[in-house]
Parts: sequence; C-alpha cells; structure tokens
Amino acid sequence: VVTGLELHPLLRRGIEVRSRHVGIERPQALLRLVPENPEALLALGNRHVVSALQFDRELVVQLCRLAAGIEIQPALLHMPLTGKILITAFYEPSTRTRLSFESAWHRLGGDILSITDPATTGMAKGESLADVAEMFSNYSDVVVLRDRDAASVYSMLETLRVPIINAGNGIDEHPTQALADLYAIFKWRPDLATDTPGQPIRVGIIGNPAKMRTVRSLLHLLSMFAAVIEEVVVINGDDDVFGEGQRDALAQRGLRLRVEPGLRNNLPALDVVYINSIAWIGDTFERLTQAHRLTADSPFKPGAIVLHPLARGDELDVSLDDTAHNWYFSQARGATFVRMALLTSMVERVHRVADVRPPS
Amino acid sequence: VVTGLELHPLLRRGIEVRSRHVGIERPQALLRLVPENPEALLALGNRHVVSALQFDRELVVQLCRLAAGIEIQPALLHMPLTGKILITAFYEPSTRTRLSFESAWHRLGGDILSITDPATTGMAKGESLADVAEMFSNYSDVVVLRDRDAASVYSMLETLRVPIINAGNGIDEHPTQALADLYAIFKWRPDLATDTPGQPIRVGIIGNPAKMRTVRSLLHLLSMFAAVIEEVVVINGDDDVFGEGQRDALAQRGLRLRVEPGLRNNLPALDVVYINSIAWIGDTFERLTQAHRLTADSPFKPGAIVLHPLARGDELDVSLDDTAHNWYFSQARGATFVRMALLTSMVERVHRVADVRPPS
Amino acid sequence: VVTGLELHPLLRRGIEVRSRHVGIERPQALLRLVPENPEALLALGNRHVVSALQFDRELVVQLCRLAAGIEIQPALLHMPLTGKILITAFYEPSTRTRLSFESAWHRLGGDILSITDPATTGMAKGESLADVAEMFSNYSDVVVLRDRDAASVYSMLETLRVPIINAGNGIDEHPTQALADLYAIFKWRPDLATDTPGQPIRVGIIGNPAKMRTVRSLLHLLSMFAAVIEEVVVINGDDDVFGEGQRDALAQRGLRLRVEPGLRNNLPALDVVYINSIAWIGDTFERLTQAHRLTADSPFKPGAIVLHPLARGDELDVSLDDTAHNWYFSQARGATFVRMALLTSMVERVHRVADVRPPS
Repeated sequence: VVTGLELHPLLRRGIEVRSRHVGIERPQALLRLVPENPEALLALGNRHVVSALQFDRELVVQLCRLAAGIEIQPALLHMPLTGKILITAFYEPSTRTRLSFESAWHRLGGDILSITDPATTGMAKGESLADVAEMFSNYSDVVVLRDRDAASVYSMLETLRVPIINAGNGIDEHPTQALADLYAIFKWRPDLATDTPGQPIRVGIIGNPAKMRTVRSLLHLLSMFAAVIEEVVVINGDDDVFGEGQRDALAQRGLRLRVEPGLRNNLPALDVVYINSIAWIGDTFERLTQAHRLTADSPFKPGAIVLHPLARGDELDVSLDDTAHNWYFSQARGATFVRMALLTSMVERVHRVADVRPPS
Repeated sequence: VVTGLELHPLLRRGIEVRSRHVGIERPQALLRLVPENPEALLALGNRHVVSALQFDRELVVQLCRLAAGIEIQPALLHMPLTGKILITAFYEPSTRTRLSFESAWHRLGGDILSITDPATTGMAKGESLADVAEMFSNYSDVVVLRDRDAASVYSMLETLRVPIINAGNGIDEHPTQALADLYAIFKWRPDLATDTPGQPIRVGIIGNPAKMRTVRSLLHLLSMFAAVIEEVVVINGDDDVFGEGQRDALAQRGLRLRVEPGLRNNLPALDVVYINSIAWIGDTFERLTQAHRLTADSPFKPGAIVLHPLARGDELDVSLDDTAHNWYFSQARGATFVRMALLTSMVERVHRVADVRPPS
Repeated sequence: VVTGLELHPLLRRGIEVRSRHVGIERPQALLRLVPENPEALLALGNRHVVSALQFDRELVVQLCRLAAGIEIQPALLHMPLTGKILITAFYEPSTRTRLSFESAWHRLGGDILSITDPATTGMAKGESLADVAEMFSNYSDVVVLRDRDAASVYSMLETLRVPIINAGNGIDEHPTQALADLYAIFKWRPDLATDTPGQPIRVGIIGNPAKMRTVRSLLHLLSMFAAVIEEVVVINGDDDVFGEGQRDALAQRGLRLRVEPGLRNNLPALDVVYINSIAWIGDTFERLTQAHRLTADSPFKPGAIVLHPLARGDELDVSLDDTAHNWYFSQARGATFVRMALLTSMVERVHRVADVRPPS
C-alpha cells in the first residue's frame, strides 16, 4: 500500500458524502409533523439526567423535535452555551459517547474540561465521590459521567450543585443513548411521535435487558410509547434475561414483551431491529449474543431498519452498510443533535433555540 | 440502590444550592473595605509565578480584591483572554488544581492545551526541559506546570518566552494554593487585608512545613502579614519539622512560630485551623499527621474556620461539612476566582477587568 | 537550588525574548518577494492531506506565503474557524506535533476534541478504523491522525466524510513537518520560492530516507524544487538507505542525490543541514546516525543553516543554539503558522485570510 513512490488512488479524488447514510434527510418530516412545545423542555432546566425513567412521552418527542431542527440547520444556532463549561469524566473507556457529548457542547459554543483517565485524578489519592462532586460544582456548569460502578453517579447527586448526565453507569442505564435510539426511530417514522400514528411497529432487541445498560434505558423509553408498539421481541437464548422485577415494571406501563431464542424465524416480522453484543461487567466487558449476527442476507422485513448503539463487532456485518436497512449510521450521527437538544434544555437555553423551524 | 424499576428519590427533586457553603456571600465585604489599586497588579505583567516569595503584601491583597470582584459578578467579565492559549502540563496526578486552572482560563475566554500524562509526550523520547520550554513558548501564552521534581520549573525558566505558573513542584512550593488560602481568610476577616485591622489572629497549621509545598508557600505569604498574626502554631509531633534555615527566614520577616505536638489542647486558641496530611516524596505521597483528625466534636474556638488545601482523607471528617467551621468549601471555590485574577494580571489584561466594583 | 529562603535569581528579572531566534523577522521578505496567488490554495479545499506527493510547487510556495503573513500579523486573523471542530487522534506519543496542531487550530478560533491514549477509546473494544472514521465524520470538521501503522490513515480514507491530515504514519510520511521544513528554508532564502532564484543550494540530510517519515516527506517536497537544489547529500554510513524504488522516483523528478558516509568532510559544502536521529519502528523507536553529531565547532559553511524536525537528542548540541546556524528554533516556531495556513485552506476559509499583506 505504502510505496513512497506515487500517490495512493484514494487521494486522487475528493471527499464524498456517501449516499448510504439513509435518514439524514428525514429530520425535516419530523419537524413538520410534530407541533413545537418548548414548555415541555423547561422541565429539564437545572435537573440531573440519570435515568430514562425521568423522561415522559412529550419530553422525548420535543427533545427529538429540537434535535431535528438542529440537524437541519445547525448554522442557525448562535452558540447558546458560550461561556459555559462542561466536565466530561470518563472513568471507563469510551470514544463514541465522549466525543459525541464534547462535539455537541462545542457546537453549542461551550468549553470543556476532560478527564479520560482516573489515574490522573485526585481519586487516585482516595478522594470521595461526594468531594469530587463538590469540586466539579465549582469548576463547571454541567458534568457528564461514565463509571463502571452503577452507584457512582448516585453518590455524586448528594453534593452536586450543577446538573449531571449519566453517560453509562455499569449495567444500569445510559439514558442519552436511548434518546438517540428514539430519535432515529422518529426520523424513520415521524408519525409515531404524533397524536395520529400509523401502523404500530414491532421492535426486536437482540441483547440482554438485565445486563446491558443501553437496552435497559431503551426499554424505559419504549414503555412510554407502548401505544404505538405492537410488541417488543427480545431475541435471546437464555431463559432469564430480565432483572428482578424489570419485566413486570415494563408490562405495567403497557409494553408487550416476548422473549424468543431464534433470530432468523423472528426477523421477518420485525420493523426495528436493535442489536448490541457488549455488556459491561465490572472492569471488563462480555460479548453476548454472539450466536446472532445480522448481514445483508438476513431475512429482513422490507423497510425494516437496523439500530446499533455502540462500537460494532462481528454481530453487525459491514455488508449491511450499503443497504436501506442501515439506520445505525443515522442513529450515531443523530446522537450529537439529540444531546445538543438535551444540553440546551438542561442549561436553560431553550429560549435561544426554540424558534428553530423548518424552512417555509 | 439501582433497581431499574422506579425513579431514585434523589432524582425527584431539583438541584439545591446548599446553605452550608458559608462564605460565598462574603467577597462583597472584602471588595468594600479594600480600596482598588490595580497598579499593584501590573507588577505581574509578563512575569513568571514560581514562588510565593515573589508576592508582597499589597499584591496579595489586590489579587484577593480582584478575585472578590469576579466572584460577585462573574458575568461582568467580557472574556479578557479570548484568543489566548494556556498549556497545562501536569506530570503528577491532579484533578483539583488542573480543573481549577482550566476552569479559570476558560471563564476568562481562553483556549487550553492539556498534557495529563508524561508518557504521551516527547519527554518520553528524552527531550530536555529546556527544549520543552522552548516549544511551549511557540504554542501558548501561559504555561501551568506540576512536576514531582522541584527543579523542573527552574530548568524551564531559562528558555521560556511566556510566563509559567508553578502549580506544585515536588515538596517545594504551590504559590497559587497559598493565594487561595489567603483569599479564604480575607473573605472571613476582610479587616485583615486593610490598614485598620481588628484583633490579630492565631493560625494553626496541622502539617509539615519541611515536606509540604502547600504549607511552605502559605508560610511565605503569612510572613507578609505578620502584623495581623499573633502566632502560627505548627501542630506536629516531630522535633524537626522545618527545612534548613526555613524557620529563621520566616522569623526574620516577623512571623511568630511555635511547634506543638498536641492538637486538642491547642485547638481552643486557634482562629484559623489549616490541615493537610499529604506530602509528595518523589513518585508517591506520604500521609502525615494521621494522628490528628478534625471532627464536628473537636474543641474549636467559637467562630474558628477550618481550611484544607487538597483532596481530603480521614484527617477531615465529613461531620464538619455542615458546621460554620467549614470554610474549606469556600476556599476550594475561591481558588478559581483567585486564579482568574492572577492569570488576568499575568497576561496584562487587568485594564479590562479593573473596573469591577461592588454594586452601588 | 530550592531553598525556600530567598527568591531564585531567575525570578528577579522579567521574561526575555531571546535574540538567538534568528529568522523570526524573515517572513516579511518572503511575503514581499512572492506574489499572492490564493487560487493555488483552493485545491486543498475539503481534501485529505496524507502524502507530501499531493502538493505541487506553487501550492507549497503559497502555503508558506500565507504562513508568513500569519507569522507577521497574527492579530489580523479574525478567527476564521470559529465553530469548527478538530479531532486530534494521537495513537503514538507526541507533544510537539499535537500541540502545534492544537495551537494552530485554537489560534484560528476552532475547538478541539483530543485523543491521546488509544486505551481510552472504543478501539480497545475492537472497533474498526473504518467505523472510527465514520464516527469522527459525525463529530468533527477535520481529523489529525498519528498512528504507528502506516496503513491506518489509508483505512480511514474509505469512510471519512471530513478531511484528515496525516501527522505521521509509521515510517511512511509526515507531510506537514516537511512543509514546516520548507517554510524555514524559504524564510532563510525567499528567492528560492520565486521565479528568479539566486544561487542553487546544497542540502545535507543526516538521516535515513527509508526509515524516517520526516525525511521521506521532505524529499518529496525537495523534488518539487529540484531546479534550485544543486544536490541533496544523504549522510549515512549504511549502503542501502533508500526504500525500494524511492531513489529512482526522486531522481526521475529531477532531484540530484548522493549518499556519503562522512559528516565532517561534507559539512563545509552544505547550505542546509537537516539532522534527525529518530526512526519509528513498530511500537518503539531507534536512534540512528548516532555517529553524527553537530556542535558549534563543526566545520559549517559560513551562513549555513541547521534544521531538526523533532525533539532533539545528543545529535544536536546545545552549543549551536546561540549561533547563527540555529534555524531549528525558527523551524519549530514556524510549524504552527504553516499548519494554520494549511488548515485554513482545507476548511475553505482562505477568502477570510487571503488579504493578509505586508504592512505598506
């Protein structure tokens, strides 16, 4: 490849915006179909965001609507967070989530203090999380935390005087990822976010609701939209894939759940296929559901979309990238916009962006 | 704690600004009592800040006054350091100090290049400190350095063409921490910063002046205010807690010093109690003065304040947090403002902020 | 050195801008002699910069001219990259190059997401480079990559939708360093960048063209200026210092090359002496050409200049720092300005800075 003699073919042409990114043009439909209701976003003002349970249907819809407005016309934003400071404290390896948050914050005009390695911090000297939170409150306007221990974010709540976002706490939750998942679904089917939805959808989740924080938070959000979800099918060969009481709580909120061992026989009936193979356990991760793998040849329902919340492994074949089922790129791209909408709301700057409307 | 079933109680309410942060409202008194004298700050223009010995009484007072102005009305600052670049080079673990400096610089409008791990730098390839300093001069407007080796900052002085701040050099000094300590004291007793001070104070230092850089720098500053300090009592069970010539030099500048082994019998006479248990020795740290521990039940003099310069360990019990003795939170919070005042002065932007006055 | 008793002598005086930085005043001559041709820079708009082979003579000259304009009057820049985001992904230790790029980007008004440790990223979970590139495209406007593997940057090209800059890929190339080298040469001899050059120069390269990426990229650029280079003398004791086909390709573009084992006997004939001793091989580096060392007593041709692209080791003695041969400090300083010129061109903001002219 590297000869030093002549120019590599890939350098002879310009950069292409690749057409396989289905869905990038869709936020406009979402913006048109959903009426603006900025009041719903005021509930986030100066509040922590730790669990997807904190949201409600209208809040999720309005966050996605604001995200759509930003995605369509990012240049309309006049840096609503200028002079504000974000601390991103990632005590567990991450690129995707950290960069997405940091990109979102910078695009809103703010500055960032990053912590990517706990060994470089005072916690190495034995500082308590309550004291770290006290300190973070002095230095920042919002904190984003990822930690292997599910309890860490809760330990900080007691002393924090600025809002915190849970960007993944052990196996517990990852609420902003679930927002990004919903945003992708609403770009695909904006009617689902309205009062006059069309055909209900069937959602397949290849993963483990007990052990995967992304799945746990997504199920919380889906339960708020139970009316437009015919069924959630969890594809998993294990008998017991729910945490204690988890299934009952979801059912109580109206979500219809079924667990199925096989992928191929269920795939043709699914509108949304969500796949994830990584579960974090303590200091390391397991690859679960390795038996299940999606490729361009898998028996998808026509028009079905595939979502994947994380860095992919073998479970999601690159042959799917150039198909119309690929909405995971749109989902990853949209994560930044939905986080911009969330951060703007938390720092109480909605009034500076709420007039974002589709071009008339 | 984490059930995935229902919302955690801490998430059901908004974020509280907690009343235990005594002293946050005090900077206004300091601003009122001390006349503005921005000329004193011009001495810092384009100068290094390595040792607390570089300051004098009036400079310390005016830095604290400017810090108070910023603490009261941070929104009055119009980003005086826009377009300026800070390098924070922390070759020893730190959160508190790095984040405080970075937060200060960002709040002034500037941008930052961070080095948190020496293994990621050219020094791993054997680059000399003089060459690193030469390079830093090309890329930044100010450098903040923390290094385990006391001599490193001095090695850089020869070739640096931009100002450097010593943010802790081995066991030697940490001058900006000492400024934060004084700022807390002046918020508590603004009269001490004036020409008509009230009752002199007795300061207790639980620590080791020979081995703790924070203590060393603080003693330098206290010696400039010997007229309002009745006595400094060093609480330490060891015989020899001063470095060679240290005690004589301080006494020569008028500071009255006494060393006492016991805490409880001396505590009732102290107005300011400064406690620190960490001393850095080479690549690691020792916990000293473990025998001494402050709690809500310790026999404090009424009205006494407690200061602690670092991440706390067992020596400072959380039971003190909700008492009126807790000025260590105010001290930590004020560190950012005093660094903002210092940085503004060093980059010669005092004229952009010197009209900060108490609201009339 | 550190007594804690009195002020260190180095702290008693202000910061000196040292006169040994020959060449800092030279960009004005370059600006005067070379006519402005911003159209040449448009070719870089929205293009990757991976190999020095992508440049041509006029592009290199115009980049250096723009760099000179910035170096003379940096305050004229009105933050052309405000709101733009740079990702610096350094998967191999670096200070100099990372800080230079980050300083350049910040001085242009942009924000930065830094990755300094691959262990903190999703690649630790096995994410492919193509997927990382897909993700980077969502979060940034330009990517700067350093990687030990020469192929990594090419793996990213397929999926990137934003421009990438190769900041060193294994032993292959480091094109922006070569630009900085040329910029230093043109500040020293601006006529070489014009259509009416004076005396051709003899360039000595103490290093290994097969194994050193800085040398490889520099030779590519020098071959575009073969008309003003009498000869390139590679000083190396080994027989085979070129990669396969490398020497032929350079000769074909008109560059006259000679390999010589001895330094002292060749030095008196060299106008430009370029020295580098570090070659990266896999995860570590070798120090090559240790036999060769430049000092103030080396038999330089009068007026000869010395360049060194990296953190220096023993091969470049500090005794040279205060001589007129020292252009390596000017070279290091200029690297930031030439990168500012390059980044401005890649992000298509040339129109915002193209009116930079020497003061009339």
